[in-house]
Amino acid sequence: MYNKDVKRLKINYKTLEEFKKFKEYGIQELSMLEDLQANISENEIESPFFGIYLGDSLVARMSLYKRGKKYDQYFEPSQEYLEIWKLETLKDYQQQGYGRALIEFAKSFNLPIKTSPRVKSSEFWNKMGFTPVKYDMDRDLGENPLVWQPAGVSQKA
Amino acid sequence: MYNKDVKRLKINYKTLEEFKKFKEYGIQELSMLEDLQANISENEIESPFFGIYLGDSLVARMSLYKRGKKYDQYFEPSQEYLEIWKLETLKDYQQQGYGRALIEFAKSFNLPIKTSPRVKSSEFWNKMGFTPVKYDMDRDLGENPLVWQPAGVSQKA
Repeated sequence: MYNKDVKRLKINYKTLEEFKKFKEYGIQELSMLEDLQANISENEIESPFFGIYLGDSLVARMSLYKRGKKYDQYFEPSQEYLEIWKLETLKDYQQQGYGRALIEFAKSFNLPIKTSPRVKSSEFWNKMGFTPVKYDMDRDLGENPLVWQPAGVSQKA
Repeated sequence: MYNKDVKRLKINYKTLEEFKKFKEYGIQELSMLEDLQANISENEIESPFFGIYLGDSLVARMSLYKRGKKYDQYFEPSQEYLEIWKLETLKDYQQQGYGRALIEFAKSFNLPIKTSPRVKSSEFWNKMGFTPVKYDMDRDLGENPLVWQPAGVSQKA
């Protein structure tokens, strides 16, 4: 059994190089790289990324981002909540509990969580206790939002 | 040379069955199916979907949705704009100009356009004249937004 410690990721050249192994590498990462190049000093940039290392290598990551009550369009009563995006385990390490460890870490804050996975993964999210929202075109557009809420919180009707 | 007429899609059981062939089938389509089942009458539900038929078959589609000025976080000055999502050509019909025809249709409204493609397709969007936004975490979260704007419109700084 591997140790699955979830760590907040420091944004430095090594981390950004490891991010390139993940499919959901996008303009957020490119923007971090530019910020780093403009500043020189390492380990300074705050990021919403958390991950799990196996030895020296990052094998799973997610972005876990706290959104203020004013952005909440999903929960009743309206409140602070977390958004997960870019949850991904590298191919060779899938089905070994890394994704679950990241989700359990996110749930430990005891805030409602919203995600909108980019790939077909409904079986996984279902096992994690996430359920689809009732679709609302102006709010959800082309997304497929899934939510999880702690006791005492409901989805907006 | 095929005729590439872009049509607004009527939401009926036939269309929803054809939607299942597209990878980006999600809760929006499931919600349309439920609405249809609850109402019985066909062709009644308004949708933001447009597509191209080859004979009797839908081979390409997109959702083209007008968003009000109050939602505009991308353009200068703030204004009505279009969002494209779920742009997709069925595998056997790719590289034949269907995607381009849909984009040209969208541009013909002469409004700025935002999209956030779910798959790696930057070469296509680049050819279509779309450019990445400057990443802003609170606005863009895990998205990779691309925009196109007609003459006289800029991106927000």
